[in-house]
Amino acid sequence: MTVTAGGTYSAVASRSDGGELDRLDAWWRAANYLAVGQIYLLDNPLLTHPLRPEDIKPRLLGHWGTTPGLTFLWAHLNRVIKRRGIDTLFVTGPGHGGPAVVATAWLEGTYTERFPDVSRDAAGMARLFRQFSFPGGIPSHAAPETPGSIHEGGELGYSLAHAYGAALDNPGLLVACVIGDGEAETGPLAASWHANKFLNPVSDGTVLPILHLNGYKIANPTVLARIPERELLALLEGYGHEPFVVEIAVDEDHLAVHARMAAAMDRIMTSIAGIRARAARGELTERPRWPVLVLRSPKGWTGPAVVDGLPIEGTWRAHQVPLSRVREDPAHLAQLEEWMRSYRPQELFDAEGGPVPELRALAPLGERRMSASPHANGGELLEPLRLPDFRKHMVDVPEPGGATAEATRVLGGWVRDVIRANPSNFRLVGPDEVASNRLQDVFEVTDRQFEGELLATDEHQSPHGRVLEVLSEHLSEGWLEGYLLTGRHGLFTCYEAFIHIIDSMLNQHAKWIKVSRSIPWRRPIASLNYLLTSHVWRQDHNGFSHQDPGFIDHVVNKKSEIVRVYLPPDANTLLSVMDHCLRSRDQINVVVAGKQPAPQWLAPDAALAHASRGIGLWEWASNDAGTVPDVVLACCGDVPTLETLAAVSLLRRHLPELRVRVVNVVDLMRLQNAGEHPHGLSDREYDALFPPGTPVIFAFHGYPWLIHRLTYRRHNHEDLHVRGYKEEGTTTTPFDMLMLNDLDRFHLVADVIDRVPDLGVRYAALRQHMFDERMRCRAHTRRTGEDAPDVRDWVWTG
Amino acid sequence: MTVTAGGTYSAVASRSDGGELDRLDAWWRAANYLAVGQIYLLDNPLLTHPLRPEDIKPRLLGHWGTTPGLTFLWAHLNRVIKRRGIDTLFVTGPGHGGPAVVATAWLEGTYTERFPDVSRDAAGMARLFRQFSFPGGIPSHAAPETPGSIHEGGELGYSLAHAYGAALDNPGLLVACVIGDGEAETGPLAASWHANKFLNPVSDGTVLPILHLNGYKIANPTVLARIPERELLALLEGYGHEPFVVEIAVDEDHLAVHARMAAAMDRIMTSIAGIRARAARGELTERPRWPVLVLRSPKGWTGPAVVDGLPIEGTWRAHQVPLSRVREDPAHLAQLEEWMRSYRPQELFDAEGGPVPELRALAPLGERRMSASPHANGGELLEPLRLPDFRKHMVDVPEPGGATAEATRVLGGWVRDVIRANPSNFRLVGPDEVASNRLQDVFEVTDRQFEGELLATDEHQSPHGRVLEVLSEHLSEGWLEGYLLTGRHGLFTCYEAFIHIIDSMLNQHAKWIKVSRSIPWRRPIASLNYLLTSHVWRQDHNGFSHQDPGFIDHVVNKKSEIVRVYLPPDANTLLSVMDHCLRSRDQINVVVAGKQPAPQWLAPDAALAHASRGIGLWEWASNDAGTVPDVVLACCGDVPTLETLAAVSLLRRHLPELRVRVVNVVDLMRLQNAGEHPHGLSDREYDALFPPGTPVIFAFHGYPWLIHRLTYRRHNHEDLHVRGYKEEGTTTTPFDMLMLNDLDRFHLVADVIDRVPDLGVRYAALRQHMFDERMRCRAHTRRTGEDAPDVRDWVWTG
Repeated sequence: MTVTAGGTYSAVASRSDGGELDRLDAWWRAANYLAVGQIYLLDNPLLTHPLRPEDIKPRLLGHWGTTPGLTFLWAHLNRVIKRRGIDTLFVTGPGHGGPAVVATAWLEGTYTERFPDVSRDAAGMARLFRQFSFPGGIPSHAAPETPGSIHEGGELGYSLAHAYGAALDNPGLLVACVIGDGEAETGPLAASWHANKFLNPVSDGTVLPILHLNGYKIANPTVLARIPERELLALLEGYGHEPFVVEIAVDEDHLAVHARMAAAMDRIMTSIAGIRARAARGELTERPRWPVLVLRSPKGWTGPAVVDGLPIEGTWRAHQVPLSRVREDPAHLAQLEEWMRSYRPQELFDAEGGPVPELRALAPLGERRMSASPHANGGELLEPLRLPDFRKHMVDVPEPGGATAEATRVLGGWVRDVIRANPSNFRLVGPDEVASNRLQDVFEVTDRQFEGELLATDEHQSPHGRVLEVLSEHLSEGWLEGYLLTGRHGLFTCYEAFIHIIDSMLNQHAKWIKVSRSIPWRRPIASLNYLLTSHVWRQDHNGFSHQDPGFIDHVVNKKSEIVRVYLPPDANTLLSVMDHCLRSRDQINVVVAGKQPAPQWLAPDAALAHASRGIGLWEWASNDAGTVPDVVLACCGDVPTLETLAAVSLLRRHLPELRVRVVNVVDLMRLQNAGEHPHGLSDREYDALFPPGTPVIFAFHGYPWLIHRLTYRRHNHEDLHVRGYKEEGTTTTPFDMLMLNDLDRFHLVADVIDRVPDLGVRYAALRQHMFDERMRCRAHTRRTGEDAPDVRDWVWTG
Repeated sequence: MTVTAGGTYSAVASRSDGGELDRLDAWWRAANYLAVGQIYLLDNPLLTHPLRPEDIKPRLLGHWGTTPGLTFLWAHLNRVIKRRGIDTLFVTGPGHGGPAVVATAWLEGTYTERFPDVSRDAAGMARLFRQFSFPGGIPSHAAPETPGSIHEGGELGYSLAHAYGAALDNPGLLVACVIGDGEAETGPLAASWHANKFLNPVSDGTVLPILHLNGYKIANPTVLARIPERELLALLEGYGHEPFVVEIAVDEDHLAVHARMAAAMDRIMTSIAGIRARAARGELTERPRWPVLVLRSPKGWTGPAVVDGLPIEGTWRAHQVPLSRVREDPAHLAQLEEWMRSYRPQELFDAEGGPVPELRALAPLGERRMSASPHANGGELLEPLRLPDFRKHMVDVPEPGGATAEATRVLGGWVRDVIRANPSNFRLVGPDEVASNRLQDVFEVTDRQFEGELLATDEHQSPHGRVLEVLSEHLSEGWLEGYLLTGRHGLFTCYEAFIHIIDSMLNQHAKWIKVSRSIPWRRPIASLNYLLTSHVWRQDHNGFSHQDPGFIDHVVNKKSEIVRVYLPPDANTLLSVMDHCLRSRDQINVVVAGKQPAPQWLAPDAALAHASRGIGLWEWASNDAGTVPDVVLACCGDVPTLETLAAVSLLRRHLPELRVRVVNVVDLMRLQNAGEHPHGLSDREYDALFPPGTPVIFAFHGYPWLIHRLTYRRHNHEDLHVRGYKEEGTTTTPFDMLMLNDLDRFHLVADVIDRVPDLGVRYAALRQHMFDERMRCRAHTRRTGEDAPDVRDWVWTG
């Protein structure tokens, strides 16, 4: 359905609407005026006197281009919200839409409710203008500071995924998601169009994608603005949508434009209502074709048409500040004043500088204002999960090593119960790996939600379900972020190596949380929880391309209040850790755990205590009782823990007089100084575990230098020797992988001999024997394709 | 254009082709046989005796599901290659297509040419089978070891971008890119469909996307296989393609299928030839609608239909090994033998075990074989760039600080000359930021290549041009990787914060290079070069969301032979560094440089010497001549260098007797130990610069702990105090940003007072003065929106 200039909707452009569109236009002018003011003015907000250079900001740092389209959409959404009483969340995809959505929030009163010093009067307007892109102020894009926003406009590409995440399990909610045509070129956005195949029209809300084609990104035309209309419509139909196009020419009469837009918006809302009604009555026989709105509007619409002889409005030159030398150039200054006065501010603001009553009356009431949507401050809506007792799922471990389990499979049983207890506010997302990651028990109580065609042979696929699987880490992450930001809970499970795909999304979410924590009205939300499995040490057949433990390195660069990294050594510890993560707020928790059958070390109570301490001396594996040990064998991660214990066994056999201490690390941040991270051990605590002067052989899951980066200020750092993944790998057996990276038990024993004073000379033969053992194992593997049985079937015997 | 079962092409299914399709079917059976053998067999490759358990690999680690579709496509591409004489490169998108493309390479003889011990006889076939997914062998996906491949199948989503990168400036080349329907759900792949708007039909080659819908990923149906045909066709038409669909039912007669596929392939090749001919004659009036082939074939086609009572062929259960207990279960063993014999190996291989002559004759000759394409071993085709003398572009710096320049703008002049001198094998790619990053001089000699609609107001947009800009870091990276892997050169310019978007792509490329270096026949390719600008310290208006210097941290986790990180302090050093990078091979070079006007430090000769040393003592800024200094001020990065020199000025004024040494680091890896990185300084060299016992205040561009991670084994590590970005930022002035992170000159001076023994007591007042200066600057900024003039306009006066 196309609604172009002079098209079918022109007939509807009636002025017999009691002046509704005139008022709407006035509201739009007010929003645009406020946006321009934010970009340019330090003072004189109401133009009570002619503009002077000193009224202008010394550094013009803002973006006008996308703004008028956003205010236009907001005005028209308000119109239908008021008419139809729809709870609506506005997601501002275009990067630099800050001036628009700040302006509308101020017009609606929300800004002042959130920031009382930015009052709805002349003084408040002056503050509003001054703070924008100004030191100590607010950014030029939608941000945590923006009332009504769940979406950082700084990095592009995630708006639509966030919108779908917000809509899940919110059947009463409409999420209007404006997608910039620059943003539309990104991969994550391109993938997100298909999220409509996962949205249930009864139990989830509605997403209205609004593709805002203003034609240009920073300096280039956009792809989607430069393809034929038939291709654009085919593309949107191919995505499964019913497209509505509103195309606006630069010089068009604004009331005619409003009439056309209003008519289109009415049609869209009628279509949505029809779909939802039919779905509710069970009358839908196929996936609905949800509307998509395409708005073609000039970049920098209503701004200066020409500046210094160059065309601005409708070109890429409108991207940032159309007039760039306002302070220095009287002609620019005059043109700015003319531009601002073109909105006729005297009609829009009263003597005190607030919006005139007719404009105030246009906004929806209370939480119906998009700027005041409680969904945009998810912590306000957050209900704690009902968490079933994870202890019931714990593995019976009669003695260390006395049981075998697949850690993530055990966890899966508990996650199943979590899902059963929380049928509408918990989601499990991931790239097609729930079963591969051994969480398949969840399918006893739920399905994968999928609205595509289903076949008789499909299993655990249904239009309903708590699990969302799509082969896109970006979409998985975006869904979950949108879901959490609107006050719900979830877990992302992913192959360890490929979680790097969302490194940059994690950055933005971490920054969002950090800033949100400093904004009093932003309430804490559930943490972003990752379960990384199918990890670096067990890519037996996928090999080198699937080996990268560096996501942890990436995460620990984020603000320490926010990030936590856990590497539980066994299933019981994993259960305890994950229970903690699902209870936490405003954090990013990364949990790395294996899925392969492995010996279990800790009985339930011991695991609980160990997980809550985060680091601990394993007395049952140590023989240094009451003394300073000769060596500390530290380990972090399930595979390194096993290998360390195997090394301890070898030491007991070959070097029984050596006093060995085993320290296991679950919570990686315990290694950092207390001053650097809230979980950091004090120096006294750290020194008690790792006595200065005592060599430490540290077997680590990830890149070894991460341990050095965390501990470089510790007293015993000189004595610390770390083994970990050093980017050596291939398609091979688990033990061969360890040998390739010198993390195997034999090498650890050799390291002990090398590092403990005097052992090197006395135990040269043992050291050689260890290397002979490696050769034996390697030869066996090359010959048979399997690990040597003594290595593969090794059990801890105390 | 749809070609479905029983559709229009059935009529073409003539047997009067002289048996061509029978032979093609035999070739396909041979490839499938070889693929199954790779997954299962340790021995008995030709089934010369009934299969025994000991013939079977102990661990079955492979993927059958996508394989028969890939071999089918290869066979049909060979047919048209032979008929039409087309140079063709095959890009294997589906993750686990290794068995297919290894089998075809062996059939064509290329495998044996590359790996002579894998001969084209029974012994070689046994090796071929055994090595697959076996310790010391090859991975289960297309990889550097695979002849004919430029594309790692391990991580999904990059095939189409690689294909377009390969096609650029290769007008004679057809790139057949198979896209798995799982992969098609990823963001990078979804974005890559629009790459056809950037391909010039005269000067670039052809990309034939082949969407292989086998219906399932690991455990789920795929989105594109479960939407109505009309939506799929609309989607592909919306992408700008002419779709051809070949749909295959499980039970169809294979010869009928071959006939239909052959007819479709003929139509496609005719269409491509027509487009290219019209384009060459200048007759194209609009962007061509290139063909896209959709192949709907059953997952695990020709494999076991049912195993243990469960349907396999045509379901997700065919993803990995359809028969999983072959060694243990005689029924599975029998079923495997039946399956393998269904390909009638006795007809396919001769007495020695090589392909029978009729099959050998089917392959194209020499480099026309897709497995032998020289484009897939780009180093063979690599021609060094003609690099104009960068010294002509160097800024005249009469004395340190005696000139001002924008580093990237200066570089842009040289890059312009590089482009002029290399009109067909160098590309500049990036997300819409060439001008923003101040490289706009390149537009004096070239344009942005874009095949979308152009308007009269557009500037530097054209169907020809060396610059490719799209708002997708993924597509930019994918283009460049494809371009480099096929033997050309390029540079990726990007905002520093958002290069994290391609972290995971970088991982795969780094792994590709690392493995390639160990394969004798893989020739070195041009390095992957990044210019990161618009960096963390100058996001004055974009603020916190645009601040992340952590890409360096990510890169240094890769294998040290491969990665280089440069932070030139000024324009002349940047020129010298970039010249070096463009000459290097098989590396990943990350260059971080500012774009803002900044003082210049080094005259041409000094810059050249400094860049080639990578680290140096700046005597002109030091006053420790011939002595051990009291303190070393080290700096790395343009902004930290400026701030360090400003701190030195303050120290000269307030503490003239203090012996200060200034060390500047360009090549970050110089800090690492020589044993850890090929560029690492020896301990002796390092100690000469940083004497043990002398405090070092290190001002670093990025996260401070990266310096600790690189230097933790250095003798003076205890004396090293690093300042850098600690995730504090907002929309503010440049100097305020430094203060937020304690990297400003005043804080550096305070650090000196704190760290140099005895100064703390004697200079408490100076220390307080420094903090007063910070307060003064902050107050000025909050009041005026600008940095205090003395700070902003500071100049080095020696």
